[in-house]
Amino acid sequence: MLTESLVREAYEYGKQFTGEGRVADYIPRLGQARRDEVGITVCAVDGQVFQAGDAEKRFSIQSISKVLNLIFALEKHGFDTVFHQTRMEPSGDPFNSMQKLSDNQEIPFNPMVNLGALAVTDLLIPYGFTTLKDYICSLCEDPGITMDEEIFESEWSHCDRNYSLAYLLKSKGVLKHDVTEVMRLYTQLCSLSVHTGDLAKLGALLASGGVRDGKECVREETVRTVLTIMFTCGLYDGSGEFAVRVGLPGKSGVGGGILAVSPHKMGIGVYSPSLDEKGNSLPGQQMIAYLARREKLHLFE
Amino acid sequence: MLTESLVREAYEYGKQFTGEGRVADYIPRLGQARRDEVGITVCAVDGQVFQAGDAEKRFSIQSISKVLNLIFALEKHGFDTVFHQTRMEPSGDPFNSMQKLSDNQEIPFNPMVNLGALAVTDLLIPYGFTTLKDYICSLCEDPGITMDEEIFESEWSHCDRNYSLAYLLKSKGVLKHDVTEVMRLYTQLCSLSVHTGDLAKLGALLASGGVRDGKECVREETVRTVLTIMFTCGLYDGSGEFAVRVGLPGKSGVGGGILAVSPHKMGIGVYSPSLDEKGNSLPGQQMIAYLARREKLHLFE
Amino acid sequence: MLTESLVREAYEYGKQFTGEGRVADYIPRLGQARRDEVGITVCAVDGQVFQAGDAEKRFSIQSISKVLNLIFALEKHGFDTVFHQTRMEPSGDPFNSMQKLSDNQEIPFNPMVNLGALAVTDLLIPYGFTTLKDYICSLCEDPGITMDEEIFESEWSHCDRNYSLAYLLKSKGVLKHDVTEVMRLYTQLCSLSVHTGDLAKLGALLASGGVRDGKECVREETVRTVLTIMFTCGLYDGSGEFAVRVGLPGKSGVGGGILAVSPHKMGIGVYSPSLDEKGNSLPGQQMIAYLARREKLHLFE
Amino acid sequence: MLTESLVREAYEYGKQFTGEGRVADYIPRLGQARRDEVGITVCAVDGQVFQAGDAEKRFSIQSISKVLNLIFALEKHGFDTVFHQTRMEPSGDPFNSMQKLSDNQEIPFNPMVNLGALAVTDLLIPYGFTTLKDYICSLCEDPGITMDEEIFESEWSHCDRNYSLAYLLKSKGVLKHDVTEVMRLYTQLCSLSVHTGDLAKLGALLASGGVRDGKECVREETVRTVLTIMFTCGLYDGSGEFAVRVGLPGKSGVGGGILAVSPHKMGIGVYSPSLDEKGNSLPGQQMIAYLARREKLHLFE
Repeated sequence: MLTESLVREAYEYGKQFTGEGRVADYIPRLGQARRDEVGITVCAVDGQVFQAGDAEKRFSIQSISKVLNLIFALEKHGFDTVFHQTRMEPSGDPFNSMQKLSDNQEIPFNPMVNLGALAVTDLLIPYGFTTLKDYICSLCEDPGITMDEEIFESEWSHCDRNYSLAYLLKSKGVLKHDVTEVMRLYTQLCSLSVHTGDLAKLGALLASGGVRDGKECVREETVRTVLTIMFTCGLYDGSGEFAVRVGLPGKSGVGGGILAVSPHKMGIGVYSPSLDEKGNSLPGQQMIAYLARREKLHLFE
Repeated sequence: MLTESLVREAYEYGKQFTGEGRVADYIPRLGQARRDEVGITVCAVDGQVFQAGDAEKRFSIQSISKVLNLIFALEKHGFDTVFHQTRMEPSGDPFNSMQKLSDNQEIPFNPMVNLGALAVTDLLIPYGFTTLKDYICSLCEDPGITMDEEIFESEWSHCDRNYSLAYLLKSKGVLKHDVTEVMRLYTQLCSLSVHTGDLAKLGALLASGGVRDGKECVREETVRTVLTIMFTCGLYDGSGEFAVRVGLPGKSGVGGGILAVSPHKMGIGVYSPSLDEKGNSLPGQQMIAYLARREKLHLFE
Repeated sequence: MLTESLVREAYEYGKQFTGEGRVADYIPRLGQARRDEVGITVCAVDGQVFQAGDAEKRFSIQSISKVLNLIFALEKHGFDTVFHQTRMEPSGDPFNSMQKLSDNQEIPFNPMVNLGALAVTDLLIPYGFTTLKDYICSLCEDPGITMDEEIFESEWSHCDRNYSLAYLLKSKGVLKHDVTEVMRLYTQLCSLSVHTGDLAKLGALLASGGVRDGKECVREETVRTVLTIMFTCGLYDGSGEFAVRVGLPGKSGVGGGILAVSPHKMGIGVYSPSLDEKGNSLPGQQMIAYLARREKLHLFE
Repeated sequence: MLTESLVREAYEYGKQFTGEGRVADYIPRLGQARRDEVGITVCAVDGQVFQAGDAEKRFSIQSISKVLNLIFALEKHGFDTVFHQTRMEPSGDPFNSMQKLSDNQEIPFNPMVNLGALAVTDLLIPYGFTTLKDYICSLCEDPGITMDEEIFESEWSHCDRNYSLAYLLKSKGVLKHDVTEVMRLYTQLCSLSVHTGDLAKLGALLASGGVRDGKECVREETVRTVLTIMFTCGLYDGSGEFAVRVGLPGKSGVGGGILAVSPHKMGIGVYSPSLDEKGNSLPGQQMIAYLARREKLHLFE
């Protein structure tokens, strides 16, 4: 049974792994995180919340924003428009790969790799950053989510690879808007500061089929689609292994956060910037795996 | 509620799509199938069985044997040995691709592409075809499953690409046994003749966590692993889309069969050799999708 | 023996092939060229000049500028600096490929593919367009070479793929200067208007080991390097076949021009915008091949 | 001027580099070579022969046999048949690469990579090993060239990667004969024992346009074709750099030999099993480079 002490056990378990990973440093500002920081929040669908460690320490959302962008795009534009911009196939390639697109494909493999996320961001341009940020605050029930200017500046001056991806998409006709506008919005959304409570709240909303307090906040089809893609593509080229070993939809970011969802049960937010070689938080994965094992959360249990 | 008439409706629905696909012809003997054949069997975990159409018409199991090989290998050798032979990542590449391995990877991406299935077959060599076949008969509760000699001969004389894959694995040290022995066993197992009842029985066993009549036939860890990999990799490079749209673990074969599993509920076996451009039965996918929609089987519903 | 009538024969021979190719249209302004235009100039090292057809009709230099950029870079920076920016290996890939670089390579394969040409252009930034243009005018002994503004504007609004390549190079640390500056200079140099006389003059200079009127205009090492790279990489992914069949260093552009050099004998400039599927002028190749056969110019004759 | 003492100087120069390379060990028997062995023979087209060091020490011909196979195939089948089996484009990929073929290409890139050499060998099957060996003996004017049984056995038991390539070619319809027959003949021809005198003799024949003692031994078109392909593709993925720096057609083998040709001047055979990371003899390249510099042999000098 989900209890305060179980969550604390998960935290203690995960904390052991901080020494084995390393902090992302390809964006200088991210490199300043302390790899021994570890936090966790679990929100049950019944509203109970359990936390341990640096649960409310803010960190950079990074790629977890891809989930929020996808939700927003699906809600505003619908399934067909979104999947005209990107496929929904796991790619087996690293997050910043351009290989498949540079060859024969006309649209990206899925919305969780950078190419696909940029293609989705193109649909968000008419709404603008503030609308998106407010939407995210409301989904996470946290008005305190803001863009970290330092992170944004640091990323903005180290985004040549993403620019290369964006221009490739432009040359294929996938991006309809100005490349710099798409890049700016994409990078702004990656630079949001969240804490594990935000992720857990969002996770609980998805775990509840998009319903909160009896009200549909996110359409059921959107929830289903997003959770499936998180399950098959959410942890970069470690997605398959996380699916087999843990068995929950998840989405990681190089800021150290992971969002995981146990349908009908709970949302989980974890944080530790100590990353494995694929860019996924090592203690974070271990905490989720611990909970999944103890609570038998694996989808195919 | 699962009823005879619902299954018949699914059958009628799927039958409309026979004209849109085409029969696999890269193996001449497979090309002789009639694309208007359509069959379905559903086995509920409570033992009820519903059928429609060519439900007991035998067809070539082809790639669905990859699931059975993986189950056997996991049962006999355990998780670590199997995943020393192959990873468990969706690859985003066609089933017969060699690209990723020919570059930098040392082992195949997953056991559902040909490279990975050959790597798993290497573990089966000490047991031999008869043992495997008997095991499969018992899992499917059908002593009538035999190898179709004509299919085998036809495939055996058109397997140069697979030989190329097998020698590539040999050169990487993945295959420990003789290449021709591995190729023969692999091809024999692809040439088994099954009907939708066999697949549905197998599916029901997996839906029940490996337990049949109160007895553990397959270990729980094996079931969990196999279902997850089916979910992320089971329909070739259409796996992601099937996962999003249907939301069930499945495995297709170019013989026209698809096995699908709804955990704790039912196993589904479908058949129609009318394939889409990715090699998956078109009416087959539609029948499963119909059932999933009507019975709300999507994993993230 | 090289005569007026032999050059005319080559022209007549080449003219037959105008109907088999097609005009480049990926840059709209280029698409306005008339594919039945054909011209040729041959400059012998002894100063004789022979022309036929549209020999002095100006056309867009396009990729032939890569040769001029490379010459300038080698003259100003020397061999080691240039080949720190790019390798000198034929790549077997199309001119706008990013595949090899996006994987493991740190620098482009050679200065004749777009990636490599952009990497070389980075070295030209401190000199600026006017200096480059004047240098080219002097090598071609034609003060009338100018940038075609319409071509430049058309290319500048259709250069997303090249921007993608440039940002990829920036992300790898190959480009030291501002991406837009490099792109602008690269595109300006591609937009120069030349005629076959210019190419033939340049070719004759290279055929003479860089010496004109007893004066060393280009260093011998530069000439040797440039001619070798033209021989192995000058006609995109048709370079190997041109080398075998014709046996001369050449460089083509999608504007329809080809520069060819017969060392110690002559420079050849040809033009016809009727391109084969690899982007090389079809009548142009045929005219050079005709001359090479008749005059036994093949390097391995 | 080519003299005994110049050749000795080249030898002394090359000898300094033995310590920087390493002996090929992927075929165990090759790994037994001593990397301080160095030899050179130069045959001028006028018949003069100069030698130094281990000039008559026999070593394994390895990939240099690709040149002889290509000559034989061109002489017996003609240009069109041979280049229906393989293209003539440098590939930019390693010798044992399958990447380009496994994707979209239907035939190999060129006859100097393993795929292309196997495709050429398919044309040799009707003639058989003895005929080929006798032909090679006659071209090299050395009746003592025989197959090294130990090398053959060692390669034959380590040829899985080549088998993979051969089956890939079979699956594409490029190989018409039995895969094992093609593999055997290919491996036998790689296992011939030659010395630098053999290579220099062969080189001198090619330098003379295929004529020896006034008699045409090899057709002029064949010579031209082979030398061009050696120039663009002869030293694996170091071909472009060798072409730029040395400027002569060459072909290397992992046995440590290199054949180089200076048209109308001389054939050069060098040997030292101390290889660079691309598989080319390091002292061998240096000896040829030394001669080319001193005698101004660069094709674009």
